[in-house]
Amino acid sequence: MEALDYHAEERRKAEFDLEEMKIVWAGSRQNYEISDRMARLVASDPVFRKDNRTMLSRKDLFKDTLRKAAHAWKRIIELRLSEEEAHMLRSYVDQPAFTDLHWGMFIPAIKGQGTEEQHEKWLPMAYKMQIIGCYAQTELGHGSNVQGLETTATFDPQTDEFVIHSPTLTSSKWWPGGLGKVSTHAVVYARLITGVQDHGVHGFIVQLRSLDDHSPLPGITVGDIGMKFGSGAYNSMDNGLLRFDHVRIPRNQMLMRVSQVTREGKFVQSDVPRQLVYGTMVYVRQTIVSDASCALARAVCIATRYSAVRRQFGSQNGGPETQVIDYKTQQSRLFPLLASAYAFRFVGEWLKWLYADVTQRLQANDFSTLPEAHACTAGLKSMTTSVTADAIEECRKLCGGHGYLSNSGLPELFAVYIPTCTYEGDNVVLLLQVARFLMKTVSQLGSGKKPVGTTAYMGRAEHLMQCRCEVERAEDWLKPSVILEAFEARAFRMSIACAKNLSKFSNPEDGFSELSPDLLEAAIAHCQLIVVSKYIEKLQQDIPGKGVKRQLEILCNVYALHLLHKHLGDFVTTSCITPKQGALANEQLRLLYSQVRPNAITLVDAFNYTDHYLGSVLGCYNGNV
Amino acid sequence: MEALDYHAEERRKAEFDLEEMKIVWAGSRQNYEISDRMARLVASDPVFRKDNRTMLSRKDLFKDTLRKAAHAWKRIIELRLSEEEAHMLRSYVDQPAFTDLHWGMFIPAIKGQGTEEQHEKWLPMAYKMQIIGCYAQTELGHGSNVQGLETTATFDPQTDEFVIHSPTLTSSKWWPGGLGKVSTHAVVYARLITGVQDHGVHGFIVQLRSLDDHSPLPGITVGDIGMKFGSGAYNSMDNGLLRFDHVRIPRNQMLMRVSQVTREGKFVQSDVPRQLVYGTMVYVRQTIVSDASCALARAVCIATRYSAVRRQFGSQNGGPETQVIDYKTQQSRLFPLLASAYAFRFVGEWLKWLYADVTQRLQANDFSTLPEAHACTAGLKSMTTSVTADAIEECRKLCGGHGYLSNSGLPELFAVYIPTCTYEGDNVVLLLQVARFLMKTVSQLGSGKKPVGTTAYMGRAEHLMQCRCEVERAEDWLKPSVILEAFEARAFRMSIACAKNLSKFSNPEDGFSELSPDLLEAAIAHCQLIVVSKYIEKLQQDIPGKGVKRQLEILCNVYALHLLHKHLGDFVTTSCITPKQGALANEQLRLLYSQVRPNAITLVDAFNYTDHYLGSVLGCYNGNV
Repeated sequence: MEALDYHAEERRKAEFDLEEMKIVWAGSRQNYEISDRMARLVASDPVFRKDNRTMLSRKDLFKDTLRKAAHAWKRIIELRLSEEEAHMLRSYVDQPAFTDLHWGMFIPAIKGQGTEEQHEKWLPMAYKMQIIGCYAQTELGHGSNVQGLETTATFDPQTDEFVIHSPTLTSSKWWPGGLGKVSTHAVVYARLITGVQDHGVHGFIVQLRSLDDHSPLPGITVGDIGMKFGSGAYNSMDNGLLRFDHVRIPRNQMLMRVSQVTREGKFVQSDVPRQLVYGTMVYVRQTIVSDASCALARAVCIATRYSAVRRQFGSQNGGPETQVIDYKTQQSRLFPLLASAYAFRFVGEWLKWLYADVTQRLQANDFSTLPEAHACTAGLKSMTTSVTADAIEECRKLCGGHGYLSNSGLPELFAVYIPTCTYEGDNVVLLLQVARFLMKTVSQLGSGKKPVGTTAYMGRAEHLMQCRCEVERAEDWLKPSVILEAFEARAFRMSIACAKNLSKFSNPEDGFSELSPDLLEAAIAHCQLIVVSKYIEKLQQDIPGKGVKRQLEILCNVYALHLLHKHLGDFVTTSCITPKQGALANEQLRLLYSQVRPNAITLVDAFNYTDHYLGSVLGCYNGNV
Repeated sequence: MEALDYHAEERRKAEFDLEEMKIVWAGSRQNYEISDRMARLVASDPVFRKDNRTMLSRKDLFKDTLRKAAHAWKRIIELRLSEEEAHMLRSYVDQPAFTDLHWGMFIPAIKGQGTEEQHEKWLPMAYKMQIIGCYAQTELGHGSNVQGLETTATFDPQTDEFVIHSPTLTSSKWWPGGLGKVSTHAVVYARLITGVQDHGVHGFIVQLRSLDDHSPLPGITVGDIGMKFGSGAYNSMDNGLLRFDHVRIPRNQMLMRVSQVTREGKFVQSDVPRQLVYGTMVYVRQTIVSDASCALARAVCIATRYSAVRRQFGSQNGGPETQVIDYKTQQSRLFPLLASAYAFRFVGEWLKWLYADVTQRLQANDFSTLPEAHACTAGLKSMTTSVTADAIEECRKLCGGHGYLSNSGLPELFAVYIPTCTYEGDNVVLLLQVARFLMKTVSQLGSGKKPVGTTAYMGRAEHLMQCRCEVERAEDWLKPSVILEAFEARAFRMSIACAKNLSKFSNPEDGFSELSPDLLEAAIAHCQLIVVSKYIEKLQQDIPGKGVKRQLEILCNVYALHLLHKHLGDFVTTSCITPKQGALANEQLRLLYSQVRPNAITLVDAFNYTDHYLGSVLGCYNGNV
């Protein structure tokens, strides 16, 4: 069929400069150019086709993944791609593979926790993929609770070795990607035992399979854990299980940057601060937030394009039916998600800055901002991934029945995405960490210790407890200062209310446990405030391009006001706003939807996704579904 | 391994008579016995094994489905099962198959819309499965909007035939289950044309495939539409596409109970009221609500059992870690879903009564309650299925990482369930119908026309606009009258607010469209009120068994108060309750969770699901995960 553009008319309606918006989305012109080049490289290469992926049997799917990983590796070498380019190319291949863990976890773990000598020994082999590694932390019985891991690494001073062992069924390593079939090595987390002493969990490099014939080494039981959610999706990954029966490794395969075991079996801590580990967590979670905006944008792109093509009802006088994107019910579900994609993008960008800042401070032995940075990234990881998971499913519903077909791309996107809510910290556990940090911050308010970073607003305690929203007309809700104050006051008052209720318990831990559902809500309010405030900060920057800033302002207001409507109970019961002001916000929100409408298609074009990457018959660029 | 019961201690804690609760859940002792017998019959038959289902290729999965359908049919005949027993047996086989449509849609359509002669001709063949039928309504371009269907059935007076034709690409039938590979016949919905007149959409029996060699008949293009969400799941169904190229059928294959075309080509309406069609919709939707409670109960059963086995964190002094079901965050997510399962069960039971009532009235030509019954079932279908779909996914998350494995049973349950939100009326479209009915009811309040059935509360307009909630202490929230009034006032005031805003528009349709997001919320408030009120009515009945009623009261309060907390903004901004009363409700809710806790495992045992039916390694009866 001819490459007719069914969206051409929609694109003519746009009121802003698309090319500039693409650069804003990508973060910089350079990012945009690399991303664009890598996306096209993948899209134009027949080896990377993925449209038949959901039809493959598990075995064929896995073979297909191996083929793509090998081909990607070949292209990366042939084209001499930089590490950044290679990373982007792999992400556009868009098929979970053992290489994700090799590059994303195994190598960083050695880099971060290994000594110089360990770097020299292991990294060159890993970079050349002569060895392939995975990250074996989670156990069958132990997910979020890393300190509860049961695998042991007992030092044997006689042979100068560690004996790695799985003492129970629940201590079996379970889930690590790349482990089931491919990896030759793993970074294994185990309890370090010297003599009768348990020194807690440390990392060890363990060879799992022979480099000659790939068979498991003696004492090692390894396998694939079976089918996972969805067809295609994470079934391309060989998530595995692993048991050790007294497997011996040389002492120098303990990752010894932070702690060491000497030849005599003495446990010593180096002077490298343990806090460095938190720096890595900030890094990983920042990546996850950035990925959340990508996944969300992808689902929103499909749903928006399809909503402009799909027509249902409303035909009068025999004319065409109404585009479903013109229905307010569709807009009120879709546009907040579009706004969220941009909001998460900008907060992700800010997190990159935060990570750089934290790193710099750590190098100068300044740990003062670390707890706040840690709480903030934990909260944002939790909030953005939970919202994104739900939003992908919402976008599927917004495509009506056809969203249920695999070729809409949405079922697989959902299935691939949802584990993000669990790995790198279960989302509920993370929010409770945030809540704990908030309660600590509140408790120190009187002490003269000033709250920093994203909790700085709590320093204005008196004002936030007293302030009253001054909105009188719907358009007053467009002022950033009004929005910001309402979100600050709500978050602060919820924290204060929790602190007050907590103080009624004689045992604080009992109180924390009993009130944890309320604490979660306070933590969410705090995280939403961060996203809103970082978006508003972004808008204070100079943003070039005709109409670009204006569109971003509209989306910022949509983001904030839809949250306000959704959590109206929070805002009203804490007296931050009146019911009447809530109704005005809702009225303003409706007007904003009308302003988004003509720009919707172009706003998703700005994500610059290729049809290959979207992988959806409903979401293709020209609208020919 | 030995059949050790890991839940034995949990079961000892129960404060009620499990056997009596099983009967309450099943609806009657007789239902319980049939259901129990059928479930065991299926569970003990190796042909019905399904634990490897998600690993099968599409082709093998489809073969497996055919084998099971044939075996079920064989057993039904051998055991001379009643229609009710057969239906239950098929549902416990738990694998979507063409037989669902044959028995559930094709036969009922002929029964409901066919004449006596048509019954005599077609039903015996269908009952013996000499012909297999499907239900071909939805088209590629037309889902919810049945009146927009494009397929035509043009009467040819020369040959006394209808010519069935697909004039456009969008008119292709798309989705019907059983169509892709199996069906020999279909009830096809098409626009009836006589001469130049279009009489709207009617049903026609069309043979699709040869009864000799199963090849498609001339003029018929038929095929499977491809992979759908999930592995296993609905991929066992041959959802199909169908195009007609001037296919001729005899005139007597139009379903002619309500309208006829004579030999001369004259279109006549019979005196059978068209409203009968709505009776059928009430029936189908009542079934869907009942199925929602089953699906929800299944997910809740898995998540509850696993939450009692899974331990994470909280170990002190080297003791075992805390059962995750003891965490308040887990309880506050899980127990409202448990309560919802019971609530939906009872409202489904009430809908059965409503259907019987409507049927009786229709037979007496009394159509007065039909619009209300129609709105009520539409709303309940929408609300219960949306909640259930989200709840299954929430239960999966409540199982942590392991919920993501196919063998947890939850991914497939989710994938199988979610289409329910779209078929038989898209959930948003249905809620808008409810909203329309509510606005009509409000507009007639002054006219002396009394609102009936589930809208009867609107007759107490003056009281509901003025009443103030009298809660002063948390335990006041346990009074059914207090809860009921708060929900009635909230629903009513939201409807009134919408009506007031609507009146500001000069064109009511523009207003309805512009305010549709608010109207949806008002409709949801109304539907939640129905569920709460029917649950409270149920509790006014005599319910035997030690502690049974008490447990159901606790769950009723959990159901109502968790909704109140979730929609606090509605209740407070309409001044139905004060912020303080909202906080007391939340406090009471926490106490209720503690009361549910010791009974949780036994409350899910009452669903009486076999391990086979649950199909989950996490949810098995003895807790040996």
